[in-house]
Amino acid sequence: MRRSSRSELAVLKETCRALVRVRGEESAASLSSLAARRYGLLTATDKAMFFRFLLADFGPSDSDIVEAIAAYQADASPSNAQALEMAATAPRQQLFTAMNTAEGGTACMLAMRADCVTASRLEPTLRPVERDLARLIEAWFNRGFLDLQHIDWDTPAAILEKLIAYEAVHEIRGWDDLRRRLESDRRCFGFFHPALPAEPLIFVEVALTVGLQTSIQAVIDAPRPDDSTSDKPDTAIFYSITNCQAGLAGIPLGSFLLKQVTDELLRSVEGLTRFSTLSPVPGLLRWITETGGGLAPEAVASVLANNAEIDDELRQAVTTACADYLVNAKRGAQPLDAVARFHLRNGARLEQINWRGDTSHKGIDESYGLLVNYVYDPSDLADNHEAFVNEHRVTYSSTIAGLLTSVD
Amino acid sequence: MRRSSRSELAVLKETCRALVRVRGEESAASLSSLAARRYGLLTATDKAMFFRFLLADFGPSDSDIVEAIAAYQADASPSNAQALEMAATAPRQQLFTAMNTAEGGTACMLAMRADCVTASRLEPTLRPVERDLARLIEAWFNRGFLDLQHIDWDTPAAILEKLIAYEAVHEIRGWDDLRRRLESDRRCFGFFHPALPAEPLIFVEVALTVGLQTSIQAVIDAPRPDDSTSDKPDTAIFYSITNCQAGLAGIPLGSFLLKQVTDELLRSVEGLTRFSTLSPVPGLLRWITETGGGLAPEAVASVLANNAEIDDELRQAVTTACADYLVNAKRGAQPLDAVARFHLRNGARLEQINWRGDTSHKGIDESYGLLVNYVYDPSDLADNHEAFVNEHRVTYSSTIAGLLTSVD
Amino acid sequence: MRRSSRSELAVLKETCRALVRVRGEESAASLSSLAARRYGLLTATDKAMFFRFLLADFGPSDSDIVEAIAAYQADASPSNAQALEMAATAPRQQLFTAMNTAEGGTACMLAMRADCVTASRLEPTLRPVERDLARLIEAWFNRGFLDLQHIDWDTPAAILEKLIAYEAVHEIRGWDDLRRRLESDRRCFGFFHPALPAEPLIFVEVALTVGLQTSIQAVIDAPRPDDSTSDKPDTAIFYSITNCQAGLAGIPLGSFLLKQVTDELLRSVEGLTRFSTLSPVPGLLRWITETGGGLAPEAVASVLANNAEIDDELRQAVTTACADYLVNAKRGAQPLDAVARFHLRNGARLEQINWRGDTSHKGIDESYGLLVNYVYDPSDLADNHEAFVNEHRVTYSSTIAGLLTSVD
Amino acid sequence: MRRSSRSELAVLKETCRALVRVRGEESAASLSSLAARRYGLLTATDKAMFFRFLLADFGPSDSDIVEAIAAYQADASPSNAQALEMAATAPRQQLFTAMNTAEGGTACMLAMRADCVTASRLEPTLRPVERDLARLIEAWFNRGFLDLQHIDWDTPAAILEKLIAYEAVHEIRGWDDLRRRLESDRRCFGFFHPALPAEPLIFVEVALTVGLQTSIQAVIDAPRPDDSTSDKPDTAIFYSITNCQAGLAGIPLGSFLLKQVTDELLRSVEGLTRFSTLSPVPGLLRWITETGGGLAPEAVASVLANNAEIDDELRQAVTTACADYLVNAKRGAQPLDAVARFHLRNGARLEQINWRGDTSHKGIDESYGLLVNYVYDPSDLADNHEAFVNEHRVTYSSTIAGLLTSVD
Repeated sequence: MRRSSRSELAVLKETCRALVRVRGEESAASLSSLAARRYGLLTATDKAMFFRFLLADFGPSDSDIVEAIAAYQADASPSNAQALEMAATAPRQQLFTAMNTAEGGTACMLAMRADCVTASRLEPTLRPVERDLARLIEAWFNRGFLDLQHIDWDTPAAILEKLIAYEAVHEIRGWDDLRRRLESDRRCFGFFHPALPAEPLIFVEVALTVGLQTSIQAVIDAPRPDDSTSDKPDTAIFYSITNCQAGLAGIPLGSFLLKQVTDELLRSVEGLTRFSTLSPVPGLLRWITETGGGLAPEAVASVLANNAEIDDELRQAVTTACADYLVNAKRGAQPLDAVARFHLRNGARLEQINWRGDTSHKGIDESYGLLVNYVYDPSDLADNHEAFVNEHRVTYSSTIAGLLTSVD
Repeated sequence: MRRSSRSELAVLKETCRALVRVRGEESAASLSSLAARRYGLLTATDKAMFFRFLLADFGPSDSDIVEAIAAYQADASPSNAQALEMAATAPRQQLFTAMNTAEGGTACMLAMRADCVTASRLEPTLRPVERDLARLIEAWFNRGFLDLQHIDWDTPAAILEKLIAYEAVHEIRGWDDLRRRLESDRRCFGFFHPALPAEPLIFVEVALTVGLQTSIQAVIDAPRPDDSTSDKPDTAIFYSITNCQAGLAGIPLGSFLLKQVTDELLRSVEGLTRFSTLSPVPGLLRWITETGGGLAPEAVASVLANNAEIDDELRQAVTTACADYLVNAKRGAQPLDAVARFHLRNGARLEQINWRGDTSHKGIDESYGLLVNYVYDPSDLADNHEAFVNEHRVTYSSTIAGLLTSVD
Repeated sequence: MRRSSRSELAVLKETCRALVRVRGEESAASLSSLAARRYGLLTATDKAMFFRFLLADFGPSDSDIVEAIAAYQADASPSNAQALEMAATAPRQQLFTAMNTAEGGTACMLAMRADCVTASRLEPTLRPVERDLARLIEAWFNRGFLDLQHIDWDTPAAILEKLIAYEAVHEIRGWDDLRRRLESDRRCFGFFHPALPAEPLIFVEVALTVGLQTSIQAVIDAPRPDDSTSDKPDTAIFYSITNCQAGLAGIPLGSFLLKQVTDELLRSVEGLTRFSTLSPVPGLLRWITETGGGLAPEAVASVLANNAEIDDELRQAVTTACADYLVNAKRGAQPLDAVARFHLRNGARLEQINWRGDTSHKGIDESYGLLVNYVYDPSDLADNHEAFVNEHRVTYSSTIAGLLTSVD
Repeated sequence: MRRSSRSELAVLKETCRALVRVRGEESAASLSSLAARRYGLLTATDKAMFFRFLLADFGPSDSDIVEAIAAYQADASPSNAQALEMAATAPRQQLFTAMNTAEGGTACMLAMRADCVTASRLEPTLRPVERDLARLIEAWFNRGFLDLQHIDWDTPAAILEKLIAYEAVHEIRGWDDLRRRLESDRRCFGFFHPALPAEPLIFVEVALTVGLQTSIQAVIDAPRPDDSTSDKPDTAIFYSITNCQAGLAGIPLGSFLLKQVTDELLRSVEGLTRFSTLSPVPGLLRWITETGGGLAPEAVASVLANNAEIDDELRQAVTTACADYLVNAKRGAQPLDAVARFHLRNGARLEQINWRGDTSHKGIDESYGLLVNYVYDPSDLADNHEAFVNEHRVTYSSTIAGLLTSVD
């Protein structure tokens, strides 16, 4: 019979205590494997109790800190500053380091971080545990260790089924849909870590097209290409980016992925001259609901009622409101819209707003079906990024500028 | 014409300053590559200047530390302890993290650590820089990420030539000697890191033999095996372990390697019942010189003169002195001999001392030609290790015990 | 606009003529690629015309044969026999050899053979062309060159989708069904040729079970295994063998595959003591229809009507008829049933007939739902095979013997 | 004790007889392995006896041939011609086909062919056996199955040591010399067969240089390149081509290798505009000895005495004689010089004769130190080849033409 989770927790605690004490390889190897396996058997409640245990029993020693503070106050040398850092470092970091060496240890630590992010939302005092996990994971997943892999129909099924499971932007509706997204006029790239060879960390789906694309349905449901007759693509459309690992939350990989993929496409696909996203505007309708978005009250009502018959005037008004939202709506100095924040910070240019770009339920509900192209122009990225970071300046096209004139 | 190293240093400093400021991928990627490349062009003198720069300009902020101390003194919460840790953390860690992402970045960071170990020996105030490098490298080279590889004659020559270059215990005298060490009755294993696929971190050479081996020359110069007639080996002799990377100094991999290799041999070679080293005694003659080693003055003189004619009595006396040295000579609570310290701590048993075990110049000069077998008995390792760590107890065979009775 | 197939044929003929004339690598490489590509564009009608062209224009020279006959009749030396063989060898063999060197050449030759098998069925005079193709393909696909690959969920999707497409015995109903067949209690192996790395030539599906299995539905629809609780399997059930390449028709790979897979399973799965098929009886109902199968006329009528309610007596009678069919029904000296012929010739033992072993439409229609276990007992295979080949003796179990007593 | 070779031969004969009789996989697999192993144990004398056995006991049936002749004479149909071919085909082909399936079978068949080439030189009646081996091996080593591999310092040592052993043109003087030939300004490519993954079949060594090279010593002993300062190469010098397998004698791979390597270099090295060999003239001195080579008697004497002091006149005379030899000296319609025959047939142009191009003993002894550049100009290869094959026309440069004017 299986042990109760409560007694699993007790055993896990004991294992953790042993693990930071013992040094011999013989014992350390088996203890860390035990700890990783036992962690996986805990219930959510017990996990929270485990994190409390790590907070209380694997924190730094107060007396060591007090002593290091005294030394630092006597002489603020680099060496004393470092001694203070060490004294304030929680021994749970050593525990996590040991557990990571187990077979399957890295996967366990990612799961623990994901659990701890959840737990510390409910119980913010657990945050120091979560922060310690985050720092170690950030070191372990240093971008120098990530492996950019081209994912196609020759990729193992065990990886491909994870794309289907993880895809967060435009649902993959089974193996046929997936296969279409891996044909000769499509590309898919993901980052992998050597310790998790079958787990994509983040992946991006790209369509190679002739001209800019304005409708996600046109991209996803395009007929299979006839390689002998197709025109040569000049544009790469990044139409979906998905973070796969909750345990990597807050560790930014997306910008690095886009840069690597752009470089790789430039290297391997002749004739590409344009790199653009086809992106959702996830916060648009909520913003209109809350602020009116500069629309007349009847227009707002009509949008929210999602009325099927829309005249040109309303269409124009909503598109203009979207431009206003993306360029001017802020939280602090940052764009309110998360997707805009990401691409603009990367140095992309807000290029174009597409009416009925996404006619799925999700698209209609989030943004009235609007989709946006952010253009990545390699020669402007660095400048745009600097302007965005230093002066909070959003770069946009003349088309967007035209829309915005009517706002003021 | 090549830039002078001094101006290289100035440019490198500027690059480092930019690197911790900038966030856009476009700039970060090229800056980190530049920094790595420029570091490689510095002279030793300039490297020391660079480390001083990192100490002074990339240290933590005093005012941040003072503020964090005050908060901690007001409320010694886990969260304030962590905030104190953060405040005391030097920004150079962030710089090293960025540089590690460059192409060739990990190799650069290992080189920098090796340089910094050297520099901080001469200039101990640089030690905080070295410690920061050490901690990051320890995280990056977490044992969970290391890859145990079987090295044989099918291994790329680019790796094999490094074995020849790195071998530190028993010199590999060219490709023929190397090939003999990779025949069907030999094994070689090394740890590799995914970011350095062609660089062994540490490797061990093993001879599969019938019975315990007592002479390194007999092992190294054994005739090539005739697989059709050879007896089945029952013993694995670990006759050489070499750490390859000065940048990993102090980050222990040897014990873990021995454990992994023992497991692998048990799995893949049928009939093995004994695992033993054939190890040098590097400090024996120095110890005899300094202490007399319990020998009569004429015996000491004879040993030091390295007199070729040795009678049985002297032979017995020197062997006994060696047992005494290995078991009883200490620095603090630890064995004085570094090799003994390593194997005994791993839980091995001091088994046997072999007269004329190594007749090379190096062997004669270090230990009068004595070699030692430390036996790794999987069923005793954990207990021996605990006894050694907790009670400083050395485990030895009855043969050694016999020698030691004459000491008291 | 695309060229008409007729003019494609004319160009192909010209290319073939050039290909056997030219020797320079520069021209040969492009001509063979052209020929392979053009062949792929022909219609079925044009392919038949192409084969007639190969028969007429690429046959051996009559005058050379006549001359070689004269020499042989003068002196029947080995050398003159060989000269006669050469004279009678059609130059189209040289053409096929050249086309096989093209990129994609081997796939083209397999397709050509498949086409030629079809064409020569309608037009038997084309058979010499088909035979020449068969002999070359047999040499190219020498079993020493085939690669046994373990196919599992880590196999590229491009290969897995071919299993779904090719499976000829028990249809794979999509990716979920396929995945079930590749779980930890299942095995799948295929032969691959180095020149066609993504094309299975033949594959076998195996279930690892506790005890002999008697129902294909129980095997295919078994719940996913819980590895922590499952009993250790003692039996390997080969429940499906599929030849994938029409171009390899008549080149036997199945027996060799079963032998290799049995060896591999013995090596890799501990505890296996039994190897058995779960096989259809494809010709049973046709045989009963044609011969009555020793059944009473009403029984035959009832079987053919596929009447759902079946009493024990009928069940017994049909099972006995099946045993009689498998053991005694012959074409020449060989078993009439193709599946029986294959396994008995391999040295397997007819073990057991399973009522309602296959309740699918196909199973009911072919064999009234009966399935058969042929047991591969490694220690008896060679003897059984010899008895079968030399004395046409069928080996069967005592259970089958019991059924057969009632036949006589 | 080991069996005597004579009784090995007896057992081998028995095994061969069984192998063509038996069909069951169980027996066939072990018999073919036995046969291959036993063949390897025979002495040269016993091998010759074995070939005689294959000639006598595994030849075609006279009565079958007579019957097939009668049928063909009655009706010279394609089908009867093919039946005649079959009747005249020796059953030893079936035996070789079976032996090739053994583990290590392909290596065994290559060795057997090499042995048989040797044996049939002494005993020409064995030639039909050798021819049968040759035909099968030619089918098995169809160029479509060969794998062009880039050999460099990352290649397994087990392959690299074979380059050292096999190199037939310019001896590789150990691992340092080999390494120099694999640096960044050198290339080495070989053909491999999937059944012999560690055995190069043929390989070519290439130097990437600025301008045409005229001295082999300058190529082989060039200092290691400094990649940061080197000029970009514009010329690929093929300075050594080595056939590795005596068992492939007469099966031409060299021309195909040169074509593939040229294509690969064009693809992977930017800026190459010239492809040339630096080739020996192996038959020059023998030809001068035998014919005088158009030289004055004293000049011949001086050349043959290999007198160190050579005046310009003699130098000019010998160079002219060399041009005359390469262009005009024939055996039948073919160039007398084997190297010239090979390159000119491939469509290369005789470009230039280099005085003191090879100052090694071998170079001096063979050709008075002369080396020749044959230029492979992709745009002319096909035409030159056709002219050579159809009209026996040698293509040469204006420099060579200049030399030749003085001949007439």
